[in-house]
Parts: sequence; C-alpha cells; structure tokens
Amino acid sequence: MTLHSPYNDENIFNQILHGKIPCAKVYEDGGTLVIMDAFPQSRGHCLILPRRQSVNLLDVSPKDIGRLFGTVQRVAIAVEKALKPAGIVVTQFNGAPAGQTVFHTHVHVIPKYDDEALAAHSDTPADMDELIKLAELIRNEMERNNA
Amino acid sequence: MTLHSPYNDENIFNQILHGKIPCAKVYEDGGTLVIMDAFPQSRGHCLILPRRQSVNLLDVSPKDIGRLFGTVQRVAIAVEKALKPAGIVVTQFNGAPAGQTVFHTHVHVIPKYDDEALAAHSDTPADMDELIKLAELIRNEMERNNA
Repeated sequence: MTLHSPYNDENIFNQILHGKIPCAKVYEDGGTLVIMDAFPQSRGHCLILPRRQSVNLLDVSPKDIGRLFGTVQRVAIAVEKALKPAGIVVTQFNGAPAGQTVFHTHVHVIPKYDDEALAAHSDTPADMDELIKLAELIRNEMERNNA
Repeated sequence: MTLHSPYNDENIFNQILHGKIPCAKVYEDGGTLVIMDAFPQSRGHCLILPRRQSVNLLDVSPKDIGRLFGTVQRVAIAVEKALKPAGIVVTQFNGAPAGQTVFHTHVHVIPKYDDEALAAHSDTPADMDELIKLAELIRNEMERNNA
C-alpha cells in the first residue's frame, strides 16, 4: 500500500463502521467513531475514525479535519480524566512504511503510564470485556465534559 | 512537567514564535507557524505550532483545533509532493513521560523513507542551510497546492 493506493472497503475499520464486525465503542457522532484498539499498546488505547472513507490523512476532505481532530482532543481529555496517565501520545500513520496497517484513516490516542513502556502491537487481541469497561469509563468522561 | 503544568513562556517555541530565536520557517498564517525540526528524525521533519500559548493538546482552545490540524494536513500533503517519502508519521506528545520535550503544543510531520529507519532525536542540530533549503521545497508545494 502506497500513500496513493485506492480505498479498499474490505478493511476492518470500514466493516466496524458498518456494524459488520463488533468493537468496544467509546463514542460516535455524525462524523467520527471512537473505539478501543483491540491490540492496545497501553490500557485505554483509543482509535478515532472519520466515518467518511479515506485511505490516510492526505486523502481526508479538508472540511472533515476539524471534526476529526476535535474528537481526538475530546478523547484525549476524557482518557486523562478517566485513567490519569502521566502522558498521552497521539499518533497517526500514513502508508505501510510509516506503520499503517489498516487503510482507513485513524488516529491513535495512547495513554502513557509513568511506570511502564508502551507495548508493541501484539498478535493477540485484548479481552473484550475489559475493553468494554474501559470504553465506558472514557465515554462517561466525554459525556460529563459535554454536560 | 505534568499534563497540567502551567505555561512557561521561556520555552524555545514561544521564543521562536516571537522572533527571538531563529528557525527554518516553512509557512505561517494567523493561527499557526510551521518550521523545520532542528533535530530531525528524517529529512523533511516539520513541526506545526499553534500561535496561541498552550502546554499540550488538552490545553488548546477547541476553536483552534481545526486550523492547527488543517495546517498539519497541508504540510503532510506538501512534504509528500516535495520529498516523495514512502510514508508519513504524524505524532503529537503530551507530557514529559510521553516524550514531550518543549512545553508549547506542537505536532510532528515526519517523512518515512523506505530504506531508512527514523533517527532518534539527536543532541546536535541539523545544518541550518540544509533546513532552509528543505523549508523552501515544502513551502513551494504548499503555495502550489493553494494556487
């Protein structure tokens, strides 16, 4: 996959966006979906997906950028309140050589705890019940911050 | 520095924003400044700074998010056109434990070339003349894309 590959709607995030594959959902609105990463690099690792199809950031409609990163900011704030990490890493990979593995644009929000290094993406998914509980903690903070 | 430390206007990016320290400038508008990272992780590593003071992403005014990341997208598109990397990494670190070293919010746009790993941030700055040439290449593409 190069930076200019066409969109392939078989990708897993497109299937999640269309309800064909389950996910631990944190939040959704008309423009974005937030889910727990199934292969988390730390406890509370979230993914923010724009609903509209795009392969990577170069390909996102400029008019969708504010909404996408507005949700990223709200997720980062909620993750900090819910889980009290020492830091938060925001990353977004474009192209396989840069580390992109699913070719629907997505932004990672990864809590960093003082006492632990970030894990590499593993081959075995996290426990879904645990992810659903984390999603609820973060969602509650997003709702509180909006109130 | 925690995620909630107060803003210290002695930080190097604030001094660059006020013209007190030189930089290899790529682009500026009323809301953002784009410069070459003086300690680049690859050829063409850019930094996007919001003008308004904030310690990290949690602290950025929500109304500034669209403009900040709109500039990030435009820089990524221009870097791709100017330098033809195989991929582009976008990162944004919040809090020292997450890797933040300057406590004025900034977003990294880092080209990834097929044949080389990203360098760690080094202790010696890159050659300023080389950075100024790269800044011009990227700026020219930003101007062309706007034309």
